[in-house]
Amino acid sequence: MYKAGIAGATGYTGFELVQLIQRSEVHAAPWDYPLISLQEGMARAGEVDVVFLCLPHAASIEPVRAFQATGVRVVDLSADFRLADPAAYQRWYGVAHTAPDLLPQFVYGLCEINRAQIKGARLIANPGCYPTSVNLGLYPLAKAGWLSDQVIVDSKSGVSGAGRQTKLQYSFVEANENLTPYNVGVRHRHIAEMEQVLNRVNGQHTYRFIFSPHLLPVNRGILSTIYISVPQGVTEQMIRDLYAETYAGEPFIHLLPAGQIASLRHTAYTNRCAISITPADPAQPDGPDYIIVATLDNLIKGASGQAIQNFNLSVGIDETLGLL
Amino acid sequence: MYKAGIAGATGYTGFELVQLIQRSEVHAAPWDYPLISLQEGMARAGEVDVVFLCLPHAASIEPVRAFQATGVRVVDLSADFRLADPAAYQRWYGVAHTAPDLLPQFVYGLCEINRAQIKGARLIANPGCYPTSVNLGLYPLAKAGWLSDQVIVDSKSGVSGAGRQTKLQYSFVEANENLTPYNVGVRHRHIAEMEQVLNRVNGQHTYRFIFSPHLLPVNRGILSTIYISVPQGVTEQMIRDLYAETYAGEPFIHLLPAGQIASLRHTAYTNRCAISITPADPAQPDGPDYIIVATLDNLIKGASGQAIQNFNLSVGIDETLGLL
Amino acid sequence: MYKAGIAGATGYTGFELVQLIQRSEVHAAPWDYPLISLQEGMARAGEVDVVFLCLPHAASIEPVRAFQATGVRVVDLSADFRLADPAAYQRWYGVAHTAPDLLPQFVYGLCEINRAQIKGARLIANPGCYPTSVNLGLYPLAKAGWLSDQVIVDSKSGVSGAGRQTKLQYSFVEANENLTPYNVGVRHRHIAEMEQVLNRVNGQHTYRFIFSPHLLPVNRGILSTIYISVPQGVTEQMIRDLYAETYAGEPFIHLLPAGQIASLRHTAYTNRCAISITPADPAQPDGPDYIIVATLDNLIKGASGQAIQNFNLSVGIDETLGLL
Amino acid sequence: MYKAGIAGATGYTGFELVQLIQRSEVHAAPWDYPLISLQEGMARAGEVDVVFLCLPHAASIEPVRAFQATGVRVVDLSADFRLADPAAYQRWYGVAHTAPDLLPQFVYGLCEINRAQIKGARLIANPGCYPTSVNLGLYPLAKAGWLSDQVIVDSKSGVSGAGRQTKLQYSFVEANENLTPYNVGVRHRHIAEMEQVLNRVNGQHTYRFIFSPHLLPVNRGILSTIYISVPQGVTEQMIRDLYAETYAGEPFIHLLPAGQIASLRHTAYTNRCAISITPADPAQPDGPDYIIVATLDNLIKGASGQAIQNFNLSVGIDETLGLL
Repeated sequence: MYKAGIAGATGYTGFELVQLIQRSEVHAAPWDYPLISLQEGMARAGEVDVVFLCLPHAASIEPVRAFQATGVRVVDLSADFRLADPAAYQRWYGVAHTAPDLLPQFVYGLCEINRAQIKGARLIANPGCYPTSVNLGLYPLAKAGWLSDQVIVDSKSGVSGAGRQTKLQYSFVEANENLTPYNVGVRHRHIAEMEQVLNRVNGQHTYRFIFSPHLLPVNRGILSTIYISVPQGVTEQMIRDLYAETYAGEPFIHLLPAGQIASLRHTAYTNRCAISITPADPAQPDGPDYIIVATLDNLIKGASGQAIQNFNLSVGIDETLGLL
Repeated sequence: MYKAGIAGATGYTGFELVQLIQRSEVHAAPWDYPLISLQEGMARAGEVDVVFLCLPHAASIEPVRAFQATGVRVVDLSADFRLADPAAYQRWYGVAHTAPDLLPQFVYGLCEINRAQIKGARLIANPGCYPTSVNLGLYPLAKAGWLSDQVIVDSKSGVSGAGRQTKLQYSFVEANENLTPYNVGVRHRHIAEMEQVLNRVNGQHTYRFIFSPHLLPVNRGILSTIYISVPQGVTEQMIRDLYAETYAGEPFIHLLPAGQIASLRHTAYTNRCAISITPADPAQPDGPDYIIVATLDNLIKGASGQAIQNFNLSVGIDETLGLL
Repeated sequence: MYKAGIAGATGYTGFELVQLIQRSEVHAAPWDYPLISLQEGMARAGEVDVVFLCLPHAASIEPVRAFQATGVRVVDLSADFRLADPAAYQRWYGVAHTAPDLLPQFVYGLCEINRAQIKGARLIANPGCYPTSVNLGLYPLAKAGWLSDQVIVDSKSGVSGAGRQTKLQYSFVEANENLTPYNVGVRHRHIAEMEQVLNRVNGQHTYRFIFSPHLLPVNRGILSTIYISVPQGVTEQMIRDLYAETYAGEPFIHLLPAGQIASLRHTAYTNRCAISITPADPAQPDGPDYIIVATLDNLIKGASGQAIQNFNLSVGIDETLGLL
Repeated sequence: MYKAGIAGATGYTGFELVQLIQRSEVHAAPWDYPLISLQEGMARAGEVDVVFLCLPHAASIEPVRAFQATGVRVVDLSADFRLADPAAYQRWYGVAHTAPDLLPQFVYGLCEINRAQIKGARLIANPGCYPTSVNLGLYPLAKAGWLSDQVIVDSKSGVSGAGRQTKLQYSFVEANENLTPYNVGVRHRHIAEMEQVLNRVNGQHTYRFIFSPHLLPVNRGILSTIYISVPQGVTEQMIRDLYAETYAGEPFIHLLPAGQIASLRHTAYTNRCAISITPADPAQPDGPDYIIVATLDNLIKGASGQAIQNFNLSVGIDETLGLL
């Protein structure tokens, strides 16, 4: 039985995290959640086994330094410690990183890819929701060296992805019965996480991401439709085998069989990422063009669920506890 | 004052058409709508100036032959007379066309592109909703010879696009809080209309369309996010100038200024098509990659509104009557 | 051809009003809309035939005084001049009315009930959306003296009823997939408009309204389910005859036949109010308990459409111009 | 560790039940779910501890007889064994009951009211979703003898309440952006369950229910707004105390404090029923009129969750297992 402190539990992500933990606790799973304030939290860091930080970007840096000093395990759900390179942080987030010394101590908590490093880690940066869908959707191809240089990602996200806020564009009347592309043609921050993960999977590589997020009139869920091409000679079956092998035994990866396409419904209210693979043109069933669709629940696999998965891994207990 | 007969007025498209006509009538616009059955309609074809056919695909062919024989003007909203080549019809729709002799008499009613032919036409094939968004979104580029060979179209459509039907996938609980890609990797029928229009705009060309439609949890609206590239030396400003010039004076084309992206809200309940142009990568503001977003209301500009626009054009009255 | 000034055109109501007018203008209907600011507006009051005020409650009083002094016709869509009694205004809105001298000059613009007074009126207070549904739903019964003392009104309103604002409760994630009763057990302001209209229809009466509004996850529309009883001997047929007679010739009242119940869909995007009458208990088909359901589009018949209807009436042109 | 068979697992209720059980199983809770067909199920009844029947109304009777003969425990989620009186079944469902001999052996599984009888029961009729909300909302008042003879229930239900079916009225385009009262003025079947429970709670009584269900554009959730009055001298505080005492220690009853009203959000995706109590008229804070709002998730507390709660109770394990 572990004890957890959560900072920022009033946002959508924090609320979801509390609910997941609550379920765990009741089932004798390893959590507790005294809903401590950050200040209290630092004072009481010794009483808990882990602190989950569900704070806005840039607001996590000083708390992380404080908690880290106490030795408590930290899972940070903000973007503040996701990018290993402080210059990249400054470039993408527009402010200098005030704790660059801590960056090397953080592990990027994309469980299916970094499982080995997460085991035993004390400082974990929980990945962003968009990059989790894209990185899990493309990881096998990048690892095999089959991923085309240019990757087009057309992503659609439910409104909770924007956090619990009151901007007019997120009001019911504006978002309902609408679909809004946004940040199109802007170097979206989440591209940095795609580059950081995929560029390094197989030696050093530089993929070029065209990334268009769209605001979707649903509460939760991300669906990324990804357009890629593979080298000549790589057949659909070879790709399917690659994904099956790469993700063999993964409890939260749901590979769809040929002919089925991933939808939001496949992963809503779960910690799963569903992935489908389809030749882009049936006249060319063995490529070179493919459409990868990856979906997940942005509040669970894209945030709180993966945070719990990270904690489970870091302390060496069953990775799926509280998540099935 | 004109009189119109409508066959198939109980579907979403027919209902919308009746409403648009009703509005026109009241404002002394040129319509009437005795909701005649098809059979009655043929008997009374002499009393009306135009027949609008809102019938399912394949169900229009014989009625068209019957009405055509009476000399009445016909606007067919089905797909039956959209493809000039009967072999293409058979390939995409899986049945032989039983009136290939009539195909050459039909004009493809994409008003902004075929206006000259529509004037005076007696047989008009009203375009499909997906192709209208894509063809209007790409027409200037194709005409200028600037369109890349490969075009990736990620389209999202409201549920009324499927017609008024009761399949489980279109039930509220299945479609709500969901997003479903469908026919991905299938040679969707609507690609034929894109090819027919764009391949011929500037000499003969063969574009390669990758087309992924998604079922969106809204009642109405289509948004196509289109990924293309242009030849070296073609700048964003040149593209903007091209679109502005091509669509100068068009009452139903809404070109968005730089920095704004088209959303469903721009065109809901209107006969407009909104188009935005954005460099795909701000690090490369002059290309070669661009994202064109085109939106329209699938029941109006994608069906009934364009049908009225076609009629207005064909009889030589103000193209916008009943549509503003 | 009339000219109109609109103050407050950026809210949902003002935007809808501009669209309705735009449609009218284009069809040679009697409107123009130089989107003047309030200040400009006062300076240019002489150029227009009418000023529509789409301002928040309490913000209309001073503008109304200013415009009234110029002699221009005013249709005020706020609540500021709806209540004839300044003491009632203070009681329900919590502030003293600063222009009580103007109140007697205003006509309460519920067209179907006050048509005679609206004709020729220069100052018109446009009714609230909830009271319009309830007053039109109950007017025939009150006029006949058949309405029970106690009236239970269970109303449901789309989110645009709250105006264009950014409170958290109106954000997409909070309102979507939810239904929220609010102001239950509070003397909702709109009760005052029900009392003002219905208490005076037939001599003097004091009805007791229990009113529960609910926030509904749709953009627009109000549905009021009203529970009443009638005196012994009053049969369903007598009630139906009463409604048919009372509303005979009304262009915007849609009485549903026995067995059909009004829904939001009956009136969405129209200026109509749909009304259904049903015995509450089929075991007692002639009462005494009935359920009246009244629906309307809160932005049209509940605001902008009725404002235009009021203007049309006031200047003596066809009441339905721009509204069909 | 118990084993369960589920018949009818492809509907919304059955699917939800499988998900709840799955969660239980993984957390070492007492369930298994070989998704057996009904026929298989009867053959293998000896292998399981309980059979959950998620079949349409009228389709449960013969399976129940078959399973009952094997001695296996049965929780029937249909309406077939909810009404103790076969004549009532015939009156409300229009067909003769073909197993009236079994009716006396069934316990009506409304856990908070019939807990004593459920313990050890082998045949349990799981209550309907509407009656569960109304009966839990009114039980304390009826027990205290404070409930008025006439009860007005204005209920709103998400579309999954209609089951997984394809009727046009439940299609996305028809239900979305709409609100539809239905069966108004019809003696809705669910009234029978309200009468059966509440009429007997305190001696014999005959309440008169006016019940108006509305189809709400959300996937799941029921909200019942209930209008009642209490005897003179009964104050709000007395009512609050009554509810608090009646439901003391109930794990799934969420009583809201004064000033808060129950909404769908309070109970979505939980096995809880939320109840709020509000004076209908603040000018009369101690009555006699009150508005009780009761909400629940129709697929969980209104169906599958309560089915599990019933099973837990019947075998004597912790009532909340698998439900928190």
